Amino acid sequence: MARVYNFGAGPAVLPVEVLEEARNELLDFKGSGMSIMEHSHRGKEYDAVHAEAVDNLRKLLKLGDDYTVLFIQGGASMQFAMVPLNLLGAGQVADYVNSGTWADKAVKEAKLIGNVNVIANTGKDIPTRMPQNEDLKFTPGAAYVHITSNETIAGSQWKVFPTTEAPLVSDMSSDILSRPFDINQFGLIYAGAQKNLGPSGVALVVMRKDLASRVPAKTPTMLKYQTHIDENSLYNTPPTWSIYILSLVTRWMLKFGPENLYKQNVDKAARIYTALDASAFYRGTAVKEFRSDMNITFRLPTEALEETFIKEASKLGMKGLKGHRAVGGIRASIYNAFPVAGVDALVAFMKEFEKKNG
Amino acid sequence: MARVYNFGAGPAVLPVEVLEEARNELLDFKGSGMSIMEHSHRGKEYDAVHAEAVDNLRKLLKLGDDYTVLFIQGGASMQFAMVPLNLLGAGQVADYVNSGTWADKAVKEAKLIGNVNVIANTGKDIPTRMPQNEDLKFTPGAAYVHITSNETIAGSQWKVFPTTEAPLVSDMSSDILSRPFDINQFGLIYAGAQKNLGPSGVALVVMRKDLASRVPAKTPTMLKYQTHIDENSLYNTPPTWSIYILSLVTRWMLKFGPENLYKQNVDKAARIYTALDASAFYRGTAVKEFRSDMNITFRLPTEALEETFIKEASKLGMKGLKGHRAVGGIRASIYNAFPVAGVDALVAFMKEFEKKNG
Repeated sequence: MARVYNFGAGPAVLPVEVLEEARNELLDFKGSGMSIMEHSHRGKEYDAVHAEAVDNLRKLLKLGDDYTVLFIQGGASMQFAMVPLNLLGAGQVADYVNSGTWADKAVKEAKLIGNVNVIANTGKDIPTRMPQNEDLKFTPGAAYVHITSNETIAGSQWKVFPTTEAPLVSDMSSDILSRPFDINQFGLIYAGAQKNLGPSGVALVVMRKDLASRVPAKTPTMLKYQTHIDENSLYNTPPTWSIYILSLVTRWMLKFGPENLYKQNVDKAARIYTALDASAFYRGTAVKEFRSDMNITFRLPTEALEETFIKEASKLGMKGLKGHRAVGGIRASIYNAFPVAGVDALVAFMKEFEKKNG
Repeated sequence: MARVYNFGAGPAVLPVEVLEEARNELLDFKGSGMSIMEHSHRGKEYDAVHAEAVDNLRKLLKLGDDYTVLFIQGGASMQFAMVPLNLLGAGQVADYVNSGTWADKAVKEAKLIGNVNVIANTGKDIPTRMPQNEDLKFTPGAAYVHITSNETIAGSQWKVFPTTEAPLVSDMSSDILSRPFDINQFGLIYAGAQKNLGPSGVALVVMRKDLASRVPAKTPTMLKYQTHIDENSLYNTPPTWSIYILSLVTRWMLKFGPENLYKQNVDKAARIYTALDASAFYRGTAVKEFRSDMNITFRLPTEALEETFIKEASKLGMKGLKGHRAVGGIRASIYNAFPVAGVDALVAFMKEFEKKNG
């Protein structure tokens, strides 16, 4: 079996060890005679999986008792609604930073629910970038401030998170646990699992527990964070397989050593950015100081060359390099589980391709 | 590897062939060099899976063009809210039948959102039962009528669905595709996948497309059926693994022959009910005419004997026979994928146990 290099933006590459373990126990989880998919979410076998997933995340994020770990269905798109439904009271204002496609979706959803003040908008800037922290003019008494830590499509990333008076909320779908950060700076973070944490089907929410009490009484049960806090994300049947894989991925992270992983992420990205900067043939699309370490976006001289680049790379086993359909170009997504060897293969191919076509 | 007999109520037993196929291609889906979990939901590999899942369901449910198949996250509990959010206009009334724990949850959720008329309540009846159709007094002009086709905890099941003027809506989580029925009698049906369709993490919604237009404009995007109709359940990243397994389970159903499966379900249930009725030791908890073919609930003379029964059965590889914590007793859930041999093993054990303890 030949595994390819999967540069896809999400669902994305998973650690081979995780896949092997999942395969080996797929029909018989820990000698129980059934698949983890067939186990009751109220039984001791799944309970241990669920507890490990929570515990691994608590360790990786260095959470204090004032923070809770929740597994919620519906992806980040559901969080775009749940955040304002839970945290944005009638008559209040929420500050949003619009930094690209995903931030814009969060803004639009929040506007369906309450008052939104877009305090910075770099969403259409070319080259792509995040705003400067000093440009942010927060609304006094805002319910919260919402940012998008990494714009998957634009390839831009906050490097220093803003300091805010209101609780800071971040969509971290595409860079969660790819680098160290202080959770205490945030009121709530959320992330679809399918990039750095596991397969699709579950979103991680980590929040300060006290914020959950803001929710209006008549909010649907499944949309209240308090429901999931009270029931340890077991109010109804959770997506057990997705959480199981997440438990294995986070176990893999702990074993690898999060600090080693973070260093490796910076190093992986630097190898590609160095190749970009050494060439006049390739052109990075993000402002240097905001370049993402997860999604590396660049252009070639022509769209025809980009098409050839993607096709030839694919033949060599480098998949998923096509940029998002909204922007075109090349995107190399190199999440935690993406191997260094794949980065080196891409860099070598880039040099070769430039030689032939430059 | 010894597979056990899994009588669990859900997540529940899956066909062995499905698990084997999932295992065999877990690291390399159809020669693509990656797991189906790692594939983009916009790529051709996952696209084929998604299309097959929809197509299999269209065949199994014999859907006309006026019906749509949707995959939505959050389970049936999310549907308890989505149904009234989408279908229950301001000033309208929705009729609900309360037939047990799950129907009651649907009622409570709908009451958060709009006006509810509980037109029958058998939820606390012992022995457990569904209402008689002739007892239902529908509200003239009701937005819809909501029923629960099978009460998993009570072990009771609608045998003949009511004829209604308003669109009939049913939670079918625990008996979807276990028996033939005419979808044209329904405006909308929904089911968490984790009993008869696949693993947890996805709910199936089948609805008449025209009903989706009733939704108020400011409803959150992810909670509008129209969003999922417009995007073929690909508005955001769907739970790809759960839908993949569902595609394999429904393929298995088509191969088995749905009519054969339905007959087998009736036969499996009859074997246990016959054993119950032949004994004064065991006592079925549901009224005979409403006995579920999916969840067979019964009592023993004492709770101590029930405990022993569950323990001894477990030692023999019959798992998950403990009744729901709310009602106690024994529950044998025998969904589509539950093998006839497991039913026979249970019946033999019941006879043996009665001989020793009767």
